[in-house]
Amino acid sequence: MSVLYNRVALIGLGLIAGSMAHAMRRAGLAGEIVGTARSAETRAIAAEIDLCDRITDTMAEAVAGADLVVLAVPVGAMAAVAAEIAPHLAKGATVTDVGSVKQAVVDAVGPHLPAHVHFVPGHPLAGTEYSGPHSGFAELFENRYVLLTPQPDTDTTATARLRALWEGCGALVEEMEPERHDLVLAVTSHAPHLIAYTMVGVADDLRRVTDQEVIKYSATGFRDFTRIAASDPTMWRDVFLSNKEATLEILGRFTEELFALQRAIRKGDGDHLHAYFTRTRAIRRGIIEAGQDTDAPNFGRTVTKKEDKS
Amino acid sequence: MSVLYNRVALIGLGLIAGSMAHAMRRAGLAGEIVGTARSAETRAIAAEIDLCDRITDTMAEAVAGADLVVLAVPVGAMAAVAAEIAPHLAKGATVTDVGSVKQAVVDAVGPHLPAHVHFVPGHPLAGTEYSGPHSGFAELFENRYVLLTPQPDTDTTATARLRALWEGCGALVEEMEPERHDLVLAVTSHAPHLIAYTMVGVADDLRRVTDQEVIKYSATGFRDFTRIAASDPTMWRDVFLSNKEATLEILGRFTEELFALQRAIRKGDGDHLHAYFTRTRAIRRGIIEAGQDTDAPNFGRTVTKKEDKS
Repeated sequence: MSVLYNRVALIGLGLIAGSMAHAMRRAGLAGEIVGTARSAETRAIAAEIDLCDRITDTMAEAVAGADLVVLAVPVGAMAAVAAEIAPHLAKGATVTDVGSVKQAVVDAVGPHLPAHVHFVPGHPLAGTEYSGPHSGFAELFENRYVLLTPQPDTDTTATARLRALWEGCGALVEEMEPERHDLVLAVTSHAPHLIAYTMVGVADDLRRVTDQEVIKYSATGFRDFTRIAASDPTMWRDVFLSNKEATLEILGRFTEELFALQRAIRKGDGDHLHAYFTRTRAIRRGIIEAGQDTDAPNFGRTVTKKEDKS
Repeated sequence: MSVLYNRVALIGLGLIAGSMAHAMRRAGLAGEIVGTARSAETRAIAAEIDLCDRITDTMAEAVAGADLVVLAVPVGAMAAVAAEIAPHLAKGATVTDVGSVKQAVVDAVGPHLPAHVHFVPGHPLAGTEYSGPHSGFAELFENRYVLLTPQPDTDTTATARLRALWEGCGALVEEMEPERHDLVLAVTSHAPHLIAYTMVGVADDLRRVTDQEVIKYSATGFRDFTRIAASDPTMWRDVFLSNKEATLEILGRFTEELFALQRAIRKGDGDHLHAYFTRTRAIRRGIIEAGQDTDAPNFGRTVTKKEDKS
């Protein structure tokens, strides 16, 4: 693989940026990787574990001379970061992000950027429940989708180069309208996360009554919810606040369906339940066939990752 | 490990019974393992893969001379099975089950059994989304809890022997009142399953609109729900119908909490969301500390299992 960018600036050094650093290094995609983060502690840890070639104290220093700038901060912080880096961006540089919501990022970041840079928003559909500079690993993006949401007038060469970078990290890249992205992700990720958070919260209330039983006997079902509900609180707060409409719409549908199933339970309508559960089972097969999971018991998560210290 | 039962009869040959057969053989816990199932196809497959020492066409033949009888059928089928085997049970035999609900099984099975057998209901908290005679594997119960719900007047020697069998299969065994079992499981398993089924059903409706996008981009969040929602439809129909009250109570709490979070999203109350998500994250740590999951990326599911053909 050849060098695609001479200098990549990572703004924010969490799970995604850290994994990008590992993946870009492994494939030799970047001449130099420069990183920065708001927290001095994060910068110190990143320097200590040699996450990037260079760690800078300020965002201005990080983006100076970079031909790719990656905004890897919570969605709610994007506007302020864009405003701060804008005067320091090199002519012809590409600016991208890794936020889980796209229309809100387009609205927050776009207006701050100078005309002489290319803005190609992006979202890697990959993650774990860990966060912080220790949590990244090179294999995170392998066989995972990255959705890019360029505007119609975005320079196609800039988009193609960013696509090549993600493909070099092992990802499958597709382009999509920001609004459609936000609807699809509301279904596949945002609503499921809120539901998992809710269920774990309910169990936590009850746990006080049942003396650790809930934790102890979590093996089937609940345990998977806790993993989802262990994801980074700041990131997810911002996701829900910035993809409000689509998330609330899906949750509305969810509640309707849940009430229908609750009613079937109350009425003892076993046929309704059985038909519903048979239908959902088929969807699982579709996901396995689409290559986004395996039927192996480790769920395809055979990657080696660093231990989380955050 | 020494032989604990001279003849074990498995009634039903799905994931749990199949895994018991593998685990009992591995540890040499049973003199002979006899199996039967309602479906001729299931019996034929079990015979072909040599799942048991002997496969019988009828339940009467299977239980004849057995000192342990395991009812491994859906909860809704327990009463009919108990009625059918009752006249053929050996004196002093232990009858147990592996149903996910306990009070309903006590009520359905107990009245049919003769006074000369010991009834010790049980529930292994272990499973996968697979079912059928091919799906079992010896490691399924390792480090997983098995909850036994004997009545106060149950022979303690019979309970102790069944405990030893499960421990020989690698499980951690605890005793519990049936009613408490059903409440704890409503929280840790039954409500989460219904919620996962619901979310997957919602996505399926939407999938028709978005042309496979939901399946394609399922990597974060939704994928874990589909695994849960791929579980056996008949088993789960019976679970909800037979643990109706506890499940509906937990779902009621869940809906309240979900509405509170939806309201926080609508109002833009980021502090509420952040505090909630921070609290749920801590619960995950409790589960890892309790040894019921690991923080390794394969989630501790390193077992080798046979491929599902069902």
